[in-house]
Amino acid sequence: MNASAKTDDGGKLALAARFRELLRADQIIVDAESKRPYECDALPVYKAMPLLVLVPETTRQVQAIVRLCYELKVPVVARGAGTGLSAGALPDSNGVLVSLARLSRIIEVDPDARIARVQPGVRNLAISEAAEEFGLYYAPDPSSQIACSIGGNIAENSGGVHCLKYGLTVHNVLGMEIVTAEGEILQVGGRGLDTAGYDLNALFIGSEGLLGIVTEVWVKLLPKPEHARVVMAGFDSVLNAGDAVSAVIAAGIIPAGLEMMDGFAIQAAEDFVNAGYPRDARALLLCEVDGNEDEVLEHVERIESLFREFGATSCRVSRDDAERALFWKGRKAAFPAAGRISPDYYCMDGTIPRRKIGAVLEAIQQLSEQYGLRISNVFHAGDGNLHPLILFDASVPGELHAAEELGGKILELCVQVGGSITGEHGVGVEKLRYMLAQFNDAELAQFHAIKDALDPAGILNPGKGIPTLRQCQEYRSIDASGGAKR
Amino acid sequence: MNASAKTDDGGKLALAARFRELLRADQIIVDAESKRPYECDALPVYKAMPLLVLVPETTRQVQAIVRLCYELKVPVVARGAGTGLSAGALPDSNGVLVSLARLSRIIEVDPDARIARVQPGVRNLAISEAAEEFGLYYAPDPSSQIACSIGGNIAENSGGVHCLKYGLTVHNVLGMEIVTAEGEILQVGGRGLDTAGYDLNALFIGSEGLLGIVTEVWVKLLPKPEHARVVMAGFDSVLNAGDAVSAVIAAGIIPAGLEMMDGFAIQAAEDFVNAGYPRDARALLLCEVDGNEDEVLEHVERIESLFREFGATSCRVSRDDAERALFWKGRKAAFPAAGRISPDYYCMDGTIPRRKIGAVLEAIQQLSEQYGLRISNVFHAGDGNLHPLILFDASVPGELHAAEELGGKILELCVQVGGSITGEHGVGVEKLRYMLAQFNDAELAQFHAIKDALDPAGILNPGKGIPTLRQCQEYRSIDASGGAKR
Repeated sequence: MNASAKTDDGGKLALAARFRELLRADQIIVDAESKRPYECDALPVYKAMPLLVLVPETTRQVQAIVRLCYELKVPVVARGAGTGLSAGALPDSNGVLVSLARLSRIIEVDPDARIARVQPGVRNLAISEAAEEFGLYYAPDPSSQIACSIGGNIAENSGGVHCLKYGLTVHNVLGMEIVTAEGEILQVGGRGLDTAGYDLNALFIGSEGLLGIVTEVWVKLLPKPEHARVVMAGFDSVLNAGDAVSAVIAAGIIPAGLEMMDGFAIQAAEDFVNAGYPRDARALLLCEVDGNEDEVLEHVERIESLFREFGATSCRVSRDDAERALFWKGRKAAFPAAGRISPDYYCMDGTIPRRKIGAVLEAIQQLSEQYGLRISNVFHAGDGNLHPLILFDASVPGELHAAEELGGKILELCVQVGGSITGEHGVGVEKLRYMLAQFNDAELAQFHAIKDALDPAGILNPGKGIPTLRQCQEYRSIDASGGAKR
Repeated sequence: MNASAKTDDGGKLALAARFRELLRADQIIVDAESKRPYECDALPVYKAMPLLVLVPETTRQVQAIVRLCYELKVPVVARGAGTGLSAGALPDSNGVLVSLARLSRIIEVDPDARIARVQPGVRNLAISEAAEEFGLYYAPDPSSQIACSIGGNIAENSGGVHCLKYGLTVHNVLGMEIVTAEGEILQVGGRGLDTAGYDLNALFIGSEGLLGIVTEVWVKLLPKPEHARVVMAGFDSVLNAGDAVSAVIAAGIIPAGLEMMDGFAIQAAEDFVNAGYPRDARALLLCEVDGNEDEVLEHVERIESLFREFGATSCRVSRDDAERALFWKGRKAAFPAAGRISPDYYCMDGTIPRRKIGAVLEAIQQLSEQYGLRISNVFHAGDGNLHPLILFDASVPGELHAAEELGGKILELCVQVGGSITGEHGVGVEKLRYMLAQFNDAELAQFHAIKDALDPAGILNPGKGIPTLRQCQEYRSIDASGGAKR
């Protein structure tokens, strides 16, 4: 234990002593330096130091931890790989942080049932790697898939560039073992399509750690598509590109992925990874189709012709898997690419109806000018999930605040046009106040009823995901006073 | 009002008078004869007469009804088309039955967003009919799709022969407007893939009317597949057919539907509709593939060769859509076909892992012999959802009871091999006691917590879906005394 631990108060050490009855010493992190890596997730504008970090290795240990926390009324925040973008894994400074990183076993890959049984700390990509020998893979592929854990994917109901065709986490997780807020172990969902009783599996997915802690997961595996190609097209306006997106969908094609980047994002990505993007384009579409080879080629031809009809200024089709990977590389690197050209960036996540793409991008451009902050737009266009990256410099007084305010305006815009304040990154701490833009009192009351029912002591990830009544009052009084401060 | 109404007690008429403040006289059914059609759903072994039947025409009227019932603590049972098979719409004799039949408007078909917005009383097939002009359709297709309503589909999370590829109702309903147990109107889900907050949309789907009443629905529409074929193969044993099912899935093919019928079901269907089934086969597989023509033909060839490899004694491929429809006609008529050869039949609904198909069918055969009751097996084989039809004669003393007991043994068998007591028909009243075979106390406690949270007065469809604590005690004491009576 290093020097900084000496500053811990007696309460913290007494708490650690209680956990020593349940865990080995090396599973309990007390000193500040060792706790530091856990003080934030991938949205580091929010930081907090937990009393303790606990690193259980079994379901039983997770259960024992939660039971003790329930007894002591100590908040519990579960953490996967810490790649979340809405501060969902932000520690509670009066609670313990439970890292699920050591529950990282792939228990079983069953090629016949096309199911993998894994622990929550398993990395998203590791599932597909384990299934590869059977020609199978796990479909949801968040940009962070090399690092992010399936448990975190469940907490946020993560998507990825292929969710247009293959769905979000909720569509690919069949069942789970859960430790409840009161420390019971139960199974939700199952190995089949449906089960009796309420759909607790879906209820827990995307609930951001507020209803229980996942300790085992059954995921659906899919056969790897025989063939896949990407059509990449440049456009001289986002409006044209937006119309082209609608045209592809209206033509009855379900692309495996359909992504859009604006001029700013194209240049940033191209500077970073040389994906061969048309630098002069104002908008880029990447449209992947997969399946049987003939079908893919037929669809590629159709998509090319639609793109040209809607004003594509350039159009290329990936010739092989290496080129396909290269086309995607730029898109997947869009966030770090923004990081190279701006000291800080703030990634938003909202959804809008597909047909509103052009109009919303124009409105975002106006907001960008109004706030004097550049915005780089990358976009799951096929399912209307936008990710504006607001570029700012936190060392310039007021810029962080302006970025946050601008982000809020974008989310309110999403709700106004019939969309949602989050597509796949979750609400976490970041978007709590915008929940009021999306949900009315009756809807919020239902959320609170569910939370109270499943976590009566309110110990699981308190203050995240769903604004509490107190938070609602606070946000409303700020709004009423004309401010949009957070 | 006819003579029978005179036997109504004053309380009932007083209740009717209260509803007269909310509804026109012709929307309130008081007399017994007019209420008769509502006394059961498609599982007529359970019957009850409600105090009143109410026929609202708008969301506001549904809201007003629920508010009054909440005030008076009167049970409310919502009913769609009454095609349910687990007595989920059985009236409460101390409550009102709310028929949603007149909320039957298709409000909007949006081909661009591929969404239809409909009222709950709209028939399943009517959605596809309305979307046809845009080349779109609604995928879930329960056998009763001509008659069943989308509201009822939501209550039971219905599937159909194509759910292997296209999913159940929960995978195809994006959002809903709900009237809560306290009479609030709220929206769950949305028009996009995901929304913020807990996934109440999924929670409500399959909740059998216990958590709220649906008054509007957004369903996902899919482009109609370009091409589809059915491979029909006879086998001389259910074991071989079961192995062939696993082989198709293991080959990386995702059929649009993969159905199995045993010898008894084949003959009954063939006698009824002349679908061209091989009468001497002990098992029949119907495997549909859809998509691009080349892909379909490639898969058809692969499936034929796998079927022959696993011992198919006959194999035919549909030549055109008319023949494809004919092949399906026998399968879809399997239930009425059983009705022609037996005075009564009892349709079970359980799921099992695919690889257990052969073993479970053999065990069902043994149970059939043990109970002296014939069983006809039809089966969504691809997703392991079995529908044994137990044939009996209710006029023979003891046969109904024996059929129910035999049905229970089959469900327990499903749970033992890792399956579920319902695949798509719901629990209703019928399977309440078997919930104890599937869920432990902690799991049942979570269900109760959810119910109490969303319906604190317990007025919505009481006594269905989830066994209450009292019912649990009752079932356990019966089990403890060695009986299996219901």
